[in-house]
Amino acid sequence: MARAGRRPGPNETREQIVAAARTQFAEQGYDGATIRGIAAAAGVNAALLHHFFGTKQQLFVAAMNFPVNPVDELPRLLAGPPGELGERIVRLFLGLWAEERSREPFLAILRSVTGNEQAATMMRQFLTRVVLSKVAESRGVPPIRAAAVASQLIGLVLLRHVVRVPPLADADDEELVALVAPVVQSYLTP
Amino acid sequence: MARAGRRPGPNETREQIVAAARTQFAEQGYDGATIRGIAAAAGVNAALLHHFFGTKQQLFVAAMNFPVNPVDELPRLLAGPPGELGERIVRLFLGLWAEERSREPFLAILRSVTGNEQAATMMRQFLTRVVLSKVAESRGVPPIRAAAVASQLIGLVLLRHVVRVPPLADADDEELVALVAPVVQSYLTP
Repeated sequence: MARAGRRPGPNETREQIVAAARTQFAEQGYDGATIRGIAAAAGVNAALLHHFFGTKQQLFVAAMNFPVNPVDELPRLLAGPPGELGERIVRLFLGLWAEERSREPFLAILRSVTGNEQAATMMRQFLTRVVLSKVAESRGVPPIRAAAVASQLIGLVLLRHVVRVPPLADADDEELVALVAPVVQSYLTP
Repeated sequence: MARAGRRPGPNETREQIVAAARTQFAEQGYDGATIRGIAAAAGVNAALLHHFFGTKQQLFVAAMNFPVNPVDELPRLLAGPPGELGERIVRLFLGLWAEERSREPFLAILRSVTGNEQAATMMRQFLTRVVLSKVAESRGVPPIRAAAVASQLIGLVLLRHVVRVPPLADADDEELVALVAPVVQSYLTP
């Protein structure tokens, strides 16, 4: 059946926006890309894009297939008892990697970041702007300490789920929480 | 000029062995590959291979373009004052990544491990057998604690040199030693 002349449905519009967002974030970085520019590239107006995706952060999370939105998770993590923050962070992060549904998109992100300069740039900017600065500010520690937490967590899942080094691959989540949470806690203690 | 009939020189023989080693390690893993099998695949005898490369560990390190041989470095690291082990480990590791000559092969290994199951398998086996078990045994800690050290170090260079998160990318080595050495030290303290 010829589809010419048919108005694109919401799913097609959504796909067009996501495709345009991926291109714009890759080419301009997270900081450089704008809702207005992405809307123009997708041939929709900015209000419609906002209706589908909300803010630039939310559009990035959708376009990158993040399994959760850190912007939603962070306030909850940071709100609990400060002395158990390390535990909450490690438990949440390991839990996301434990489920195949969320592990696969994370693995795809990890591969693209190690293989591709553009992907590294946009992830760096998103991570810095949206995650690390918020954590550091909330805890009153220098940003390098929030980055050290991220480095420990990313290295942990890299060896657990990609390289699959036996003691880390075979451990259950709670064993790893007990091992790594004190480190995360110490990085985030002023 | 036709080269038919000429006996291969030492460089060609070396290249043949390295190529055969890469294939065998990829197909059989680090544990499964043997000096005898690699020699047969390269069409040389095992004694000649041994003359060029020494042990299987040394051949692996040469075939993977490791910038240093961990088998040579570990005894030196472990021999110093135990209370400064964390410092020595972090300083050595960061130093290797600081020089482009050694950073490039490390980056290539990191990319191949995240992109390719065979590479992940042989690196896992080499890392477990040759590095982590030695460190854990020498310090009298469970192997998972040596693996936790590796996870912190790999995450650190991933964010410093690949993703280039600003506070980690801009820090000098000694600032990172001060930040991360206590963590490494605590993992390696029984």
